[in-house]
Amino acid sequence: MARIVMKFGGTSMAGTERIRRVAGIVKRQQEAGHEVAVVVSAMAGETDRLVNFSREAHALYDPAEYDVVVASGEQVTSGLLAMTLQAMGCKARSWLGWQLPIITDDAHAKARIQTIESEALLASMAAGEIAVIPGFQGVTEDGRITTLGRGGSDTSAVAVAAGIKADRCDIYTDVDGVYTTDPRIVAKARKLKNVTYEEMLELASVGSKVLQTRCVALAMKEGVRVQVLSSFIDEHAPAADTLPGTMIVSDEELARIQEDLQMERQLITGIAADKNEAKVILTAVPDRPGAVASIFTPLAEANINVDVIIQNVGREDTDTDVTFTVPQADLDRTVAVLEANKGTIGYAKMTTDSKVAKVSVVGVGMRSHAGVAATMFKSLASRGINIQAISTSEIKVSVVIDADEVELAVRLLHTAYGLDG
Amino acid sequence: MARIVMKFGGTSMAGTERIRRVAGIVKRQQEAGHEVAVVVSAMAGETDRLVNFSREAHALYDPAEYDVVVASGEQVTSGLLAMTLQAMGCKARSWLGWQLPIITDDAHAKARIQTIESEALLASMAAGEIAVIPGFQGVTEDGRITTLGRGGSDTSAVAVAAGIKADRCDIYTDVDGVYTTDPRIVAKARKLKNVTYEEMLELASVGSKVLQTRCVALAMKEGVRVQVLSSFIDEHAPAADTLPGTMIVSDEELARIQEDLQMERQLITGIAADKNEAKVILTAVPDRPGAVASIFTPLAEANINVDVIIQNVGREDTDTDVTFTVPQADLDRTVAVLEANKGTIGYAKMTTDSKVAKVSVVGVGMRSHAGVAATMFKSLASRGINIQAISTSEIKVSVVIDADEVELAVRLLHTAYGLDG
Repeated sequence: MARIVMKFGGTSMAGTERIRRVAGIVKRQQEAGHEVAVVVSAMAGETDRLVNFSREAHALYDPAEYDVVVASGEQVTSGLLAMTLQAMGCKARSWLGWQLPIITDDAHAKARIQTIESEALLASMAAGEIAVIPGFQGVTEDGRITTLGRGGSDTSAVAVAAGIKADRCDIYTDVDGVYTTDPRIVAKARKLKNVTYEEMLELASVGSKVLQTRCVALAMKEGVRVQVLSSFIDEHAPAADTLPGTMIVSDEELARIQEDLQMERQLITGIAADKNEAKVILTAVPDRPGAVASIFTPLAEANINVDVIIQNVGREDTDTDVTFTVPQADLDRTVAVLEANKGTIGYAKMTTDSKVAKVSVVGVGMRSHAGVAATMFKSLASRGINIQAISTSEIKVSVVIDADEVELAVRLLHTAYGLDG
Repeated sequence: MARIVMKFGGTSMAGTERIRRVAGIVKRQQEAGHEVAVVVSAMAGETDRLVNFSREAHALYDPAEYDVVVASGEQVTSGLLAMTLQAMGCKARSWLGWQLPIITDDAHAKARIQTIESEALLASMAAGEIAVIPGFQGVTEDGRITTLGRGGSDTSAVAVAAGIKADRCDIYTDVDGVYTTDPRIVAKARKLKNVTYEEMLELASVGSKVLQTRCVALAMKEGVRVQVLSSFIDEHAPAADTLPGTMIVSDEELARIQEDLQMERQLITGIAADKNEAKVILTAVPDRPGAVASIFTPLAEANINVDVIIQNVGREDTDTDVTFTVPQADLDRTVAVLEANKGTIGYAKMTTDSKVAKVSVVGVGMRSHAGVAATMFKSLASRGINIQAISTSEIKVSVVIDADEVELAVRLLHTAYGLDG
């Protein structure tokens, strides 16, 4: 017997017919002899509907009241899934964020989970009751509803899994696992049996949106084994134990698995592309202490997520050029913030380009190997793809290129690193 | 300065545009110098949508989970109204049923309010914050969401008004007050300035659905002054103090008002009609102790609301005929229950008629006057309207007649009792 958390997203919960399908999958998991908690999203489209209501009510809405409004979406699907499980003869009940409770800080609309009270939940599960928990929501110490921000349901699932010391957290998504790259771009992309938390973090942060970064980071911190599975499995498929998803594990566990299977460690695990990037260049920024801070502090305050940052020496000894990327959706706000702070920053000119993309090669194996970056640059150069910026981490090399060349670049690199299936 | 509870129904809350209108009305009330709490319904149609989801999920749904699902409708409108008030520069916050808390019993889907914790609420209102409270919902002692049953938001408003000792509870509806009868039937119907709780109770229970019976009964028990007002008032109208609605007051207060105004006490306050009645006749029921109980106990257990009951002597000395009315919507279930219990009851034959209506004349004045019933029977007889059953209370006389004759009967009686404006 294992203790398992299952998580289903908005597409899987969109309407009673689909909820019945989910209930079938959950029921089989219980029938396989496991204790089961299910974390659910709102019906697809519902959160958008509620967010729009809030915007219409007040352009600068109070995030505490916004949370009251939007948290209702998951409340509805939790109740409906509990009912549907009961209709199938299972014992089940919903546990809302404030009922468990899932205590968060009071950063409304982007709260962080602090503690999950698991005693009552575990007692209920031990009594054979399936626990249905709305994702995305929690409650502050003083009893006000909070939400975790978009995509927070994955994080809720991992947090619940950590709280109840689950053996596994299965995340059912509209893909059936994590691939070496986007199969829509590279037909030869292969599904990975395992990836490490760190690889998944890098893949998540560079556009392979199978899981949110926060969710993976939490799983790594808490040591929760996370499995990515397809929610489009056949209703009569066996329980998830035997389903081939992708398991996200620690570095050590992966090494152990590969040793057991006598597999050679791959240098590169996957290649991710993010086309939703925009590039900003500030020329002739005064080269003095605090200059760079004067750029990025107001952007951080505006909650704009700056990614690749490069600082070049400028045309004069006393100034410098700063290039960085932001999400395309934030470009207009970025420009506004930088113009408002032009006096403090003291740049000469701002140039933007919203037609850039970031391509990254990711793999824990690259730690011990030189030449990964060299292979990348050589492959791209061989087809005349111009690299506009480079950023590296221990297990990742990212380049910023023209958005039009992204598919070509991904295919080149998938072959170059020997990932073609 | 007064302390006022305002309640708005689903039509008034249907969409952000209408919520803005409501916020305007609320704001003016606060600007008039009052402490204000607002109780809101879900957007029109939303509760039906959620109920349908529940039915689809499980025909015999768990009422505890049903409550989790349907209570979300009022949660959404509470948050939205609080935001909208804030957008207009008011201080406001939502207080969900479990946050106050509004403690109910655990009869899910038809819970009854037991206590309302008012300390935090009063402190917030005293600090100039408008309190927005979802109607229809509460929470059990052990922290599960409950709902009060359809139309429960009026009851919530009165309960909150009692809990915070409000000076007045204003219920904004799609009519602008209580009339002597339905103005769609009698063009000369007059709006009443005042009615007593008891009159309102009788009017509510006989089809004049301005307010739910439960709500009026609670107001009477707690001595809450309730005003029925139109929610379609002009956005720039003055605060509700000066608006001409109908005030529901105690018998003593009404007598005092009428004395002040040197008005003569009306014999009859209003005439109500209910076309949603069905008649059931059981013939040759054994005339023994417990026979009648054997009919109505299973109906009560099936939650079927039996209204007029008449017992006639049957054809033999040893049996009796029993006639009663039930809501049309419950007729099929009534027949099923009675057939299932035919053995215990021992009736010979069951006859039903779903085309009957009940017409009632109501007035506290009739206590001290004879002849009210006589006037009624004479008026109806003058136009050949056949009375199928009669039921009386201290302040009401009801007759069951053919549904086709109901409008004619109401007009005849409106004139006969001198109510034409």
